[in-house]
Amino acid sequence: MTIEISAFRWVPPFAQGYVRDLRVRWALEEAGFPYAATLIGPKDQSSERYRQWQPFGQVPAYKDEQVELFESGAIVLYLARQSEALAPNDEAGRARVMQWVIAALNSIEPFAQNVIRERERLPNAEAMLTKRLECLSAWLGDKDYLEGRFTAGDLIMTTVLRELVDSGVLARYPALDALRQRCEARPAFRRAFDAQMQAFRENAPA
Amino acid sequence: MTIEISAFRWVPPFAQGYVRDLRVRWALEEAGFPYAATLIGPKDQSSERYRQWQPFGQVPAYKDEQVELFESGAIVLYLARQSEALAPNDEAGRARVMQWVIAALNSIEPFAQNVIRERERLPNAEAMLTKRLECLSAWLGDKDYLEGRFTAGDLIMTTVLRELVDSGVLARYPALDALRQRCEARPAFRRAFDAQMQAFRENAPA
Repeated sequence: MTIEISAFRWVPPFAQGYVRDLRVRWALEEAGFPYAATLIGPKDQSSERYRQWQPFGQVPAYKDEQVELFESGAIVLYLARQSEALAPNDEAGRARVMQWVIAALNSIEPFAQNVIRERERLPNAEAMLTKRLECLSAWLGDKDYLEGRFTAGDLIMTTVLRELVDSGVLARYPALDALRQRCEARPAFRRAFDAQMQAFRENAPA
Repeated sequence: MTIEISAFRWVPPFAQGYVRDLRVRWALEEAGFPYAATLIGPKDQSSERYRQWQPFGQVPAYKDEQVELFESGAIVLYLARQSEALAPNDEAGRARVMQWVIAALNSIEPFAQNVIRERERLPNAEAMLTKRLECLSAWLGDKDYLEGRFTAGDLIMTTVLRELVDSGVLARYPALDALRQRCEARPAFRRAFDAQMQAFRENAPA
């Protein structure tokens, strides 16, 4: 299998050794899979061509004969399905590994990043979010769903986009808001929503 | 298959319809899998028994005959492997779905949460992080790795914990710091680290 990943040509010293291609390089080393790194710079990051591979213009992106992927966590989990060096060889064991990868990325890292941001007095949360939503909207284009058909990806993305309705931010991205509404219109969403609300109605404090 | 999930008995109105068991309920509805919700309250959340199921005391946790899981994203991906309603039936297609689930949880949601936190003037990022690290450390106990053996979960967790070394926060959790060091001592990590640094050395601006 020919494996290609993208990485930055250079970053300022404080970021060296922390750029996220490290995660994928590490997993590839554990698995013993050879790979080649394509080094990119700021100009590549914003190019139409690179955005087709990595919608946010970040690194790493991954490519083999079978698939093109981004998100270091997803790439590592994809590799983990192909190597017992990274996960047990049964569905339950693999699910437990998936759980810890996502716990790291969603239950720990955002809190870690907040502490770092506070200490470095990095403001402008909204500018950072706006950039991401623009990229996401560009990726979606006039498609109905992120991968053409409804998948678990649209499901989780919708639950995240919903968090932004009240802030008014989402309304600035009509295509993303339409994606959210399209997904929320699914009967399965309605049943799930009603099930959650029913418990709250039945157990409201007096 | 008998499926059980945990959900909150009641939450304040602003959170109703947004609690994360909604994600799992939705995925179960899309897949057409029946399930039962076990409703819990604050006392259960901090109980030793519930922490064995969900180390952070959050909802949802998931249980079937095959596996116990937490992290809504991981549960949804686990369900997606069992239902074409949630993902295509081939490895490349599944990987693309995994990518979007993780993009939602790591490339979009943290930025969304930051905007919401800023607007609501929620301070105390460090207290939130500390709580998570305490739970993580309690889960690890005296094990060498999160699931007993090295997996992709330890790999990604280590790359997150590394971000906290300079802040001094990690040193307060010796077991977590030892996990990080144990993982960083792996030859594969060293090779990956050297590979990233080599590009930076070779491409340093004059």
